[in-house]
Amino acid sequence: MELLDGKKVKLEILEDLKKELSNYERKLGLVVIEVGDDPASLVYVGQKAKMASELDYNFNHIKLDENVSEEEILKIIDELNNDDMVDGILVQMPLPKHLDAKKIQNSIDPYKDVDGLSDVNAGKLMHGVDTLIPCTPYGVMDILKYYNIDVEGKHVVIVGRSDLVGKPLASLMTNNNATVTVCHSKTKDLIKHTKEADILIAAVGKKGLITGDMIKENAVVIDVGINRVDGKLYGDVDFETAKEKVSFITPVPGGVGQMTVAELAKNVVKAYTLRKDNR
Amino acid sequence: MELLDGKKVKLEILEDLKKELSNYERKLGLVVIEVGDDPASLVYVGQKAKMASELDYNFNHIKLDENVSEEEILKIIDELNNDDMVDGILVQMPLPKHLDAKKIQNSIDPYKDVDGLSDVNAGKLMHGVDTLIPCTPYGVMDILKYYNIDVEGKHVVIVGRSDLVGKPLASLMTNNNATVTVCHSKTKDLIKHTKEADILIAAVGKKGLITGDMIKENAVVIDVGINRVDGKLYGDVDFETAKEKVSFITPVPGGVGQMTVAELAKNVVKAYTLRKDNR
Repeated sequence: MELLDGKKVKLEILEDLKKELSNYERKLGLVVIEVGDDPASLVYVGQKAKMASELDYNFNHIKLDENVSEEEILKIIDELNNDDMVDGILVQMPLPKHLDAKKIQNSIDPYKDVDGLSDVNAGKLMHGVDTLIPCTPYGVMDILKYYNIDVEGKHVVIVGRSDLVGKPLASLMTNNNATVTVCHSKTKDLIKHTKEADILIAAVGKKGLITGDMIKENAVVIDVGINRVDGKLYGDVDFETAKEKVSFITPVPGGVGQMTVAELAKNVVKAYTLRKDNR
Repeated sequence: MELLDGKKVKLEILEDLKKELSNYERKLGLVVIEVGDDPASLVYVGQKAKMASELDYNFNHIKLDENVSEEEILKIIDELNNDDMVDGILVQMPLPKHLDAKKIQNSIDPYKDVDGLSDVNAGKLMHGVDTLIPCTPYGVMDILKYYNIDVEGKHVVIVGRSDLVGKPLASLMTNNNATVTVCHSKTKDLIKHTKEADILIAAVGKKGLITGDMIKENAVVIDVGINRVDGKLYGDVDFETAKEKVSFITPVPGGVGQMTVAELAKNVVKAYTLRKDNR
């Protein structure tokens, strides 16, 4: 059993990016819009600020009052869309309920949509067009690549079908020649499917959902779940029983969760490049 | 073994549409753009014209010379996008090689994109937003619905990952609570996967790829393949060996192929409704 070390991969990605960015004529610009005072958002925005500082991005944190109107946010996004010095725009989720998150995400210029959550970027991903894709699935692909785990021809079973992880990851895996099965809450006999997986990906958000008996001998297990219980982090995979079965596994914490900020950093560069090439 | 009769379902759909359309204040408008003289396109455009006439749509067939420039087509589409009497726009594939098919498809107003092939409509489909979806996958869902074959909780195995059929169908099935596996040319041990299917969908374009021994007892088999050999039509499923195993099967011809024009007719109505609701 080998651990897939997300932190190691993250640091390498950031080092590579620093080298690449040293050739750029200007600093890249990343804007994060945060609405209200969600405590988790505070942590996540802080991680993004730290990454931006490390990479010498121009980082702009726009913090808006909980009661801000949709109109006001759309106006701000429109201005950022038209600002040539802004390469990436991200709206920190969750948003207060009076705001239409989908509408707001879709109002971001697709070439600046570094979260990859707009409909048009999801469609490009489905159609196999090189585009901005959500950071977590992107991180899963990069961690596998780093450890030379080829997905072509492998049976990849994804548990979870969120717009953020399961669905885009299924598209990515299919486009990379894996045979993909997507399971979810309505799947009957989940274990029958998980036991078939050469690469098993858990992305549900339920502590310990996947136990060792559900895993094929020598499978690769990617645990995307981040579940906080009594201040401690747990994955969707029951690590203790799983570790006996797997060839590779991502720990929680220290696995996929480490990757998302690095992938965001990559997406800012990609956004800059795509926008340059398509305008 | 029961045959899933696409012609019967098609006629019923068209009858229902006629009733619905009799309440509309104006005729709906469908425009088909055809470039060059592909003999198959001629047949398909003819089928669309016949449907449009039956439903009393305003049908406009714009036939362009093989050497038409991309600029010219984009200009025509832009005019149609801005014409309030035009509800659906469709560019007949294939296009001559000097034209960028994706760019042209994406230039159609997403609310008039009755082929559902634009990136933004594919992304909406992935995200579970009600939108215009490609006619063939839509037809597969409707034929199953007509015969009361529920997909929820079923293991649906799709062989083929085209933008036109396999990928959108995978999204549709996942959104409708099926557990979905997508297989393709890089899948190892195809039979292992097909034998697991409660509902097996073949959408590859290879005559007789799926034989009876690859099918689970009492499975439902949907054959999307249309392969012309010596002037005769064959599906992707070897009907003679398959029919002994299945509970339901679509014949070729007379199955899914019958449905596409009916689904196009439905998409014109849906385009009209979506555009009205979103403007």
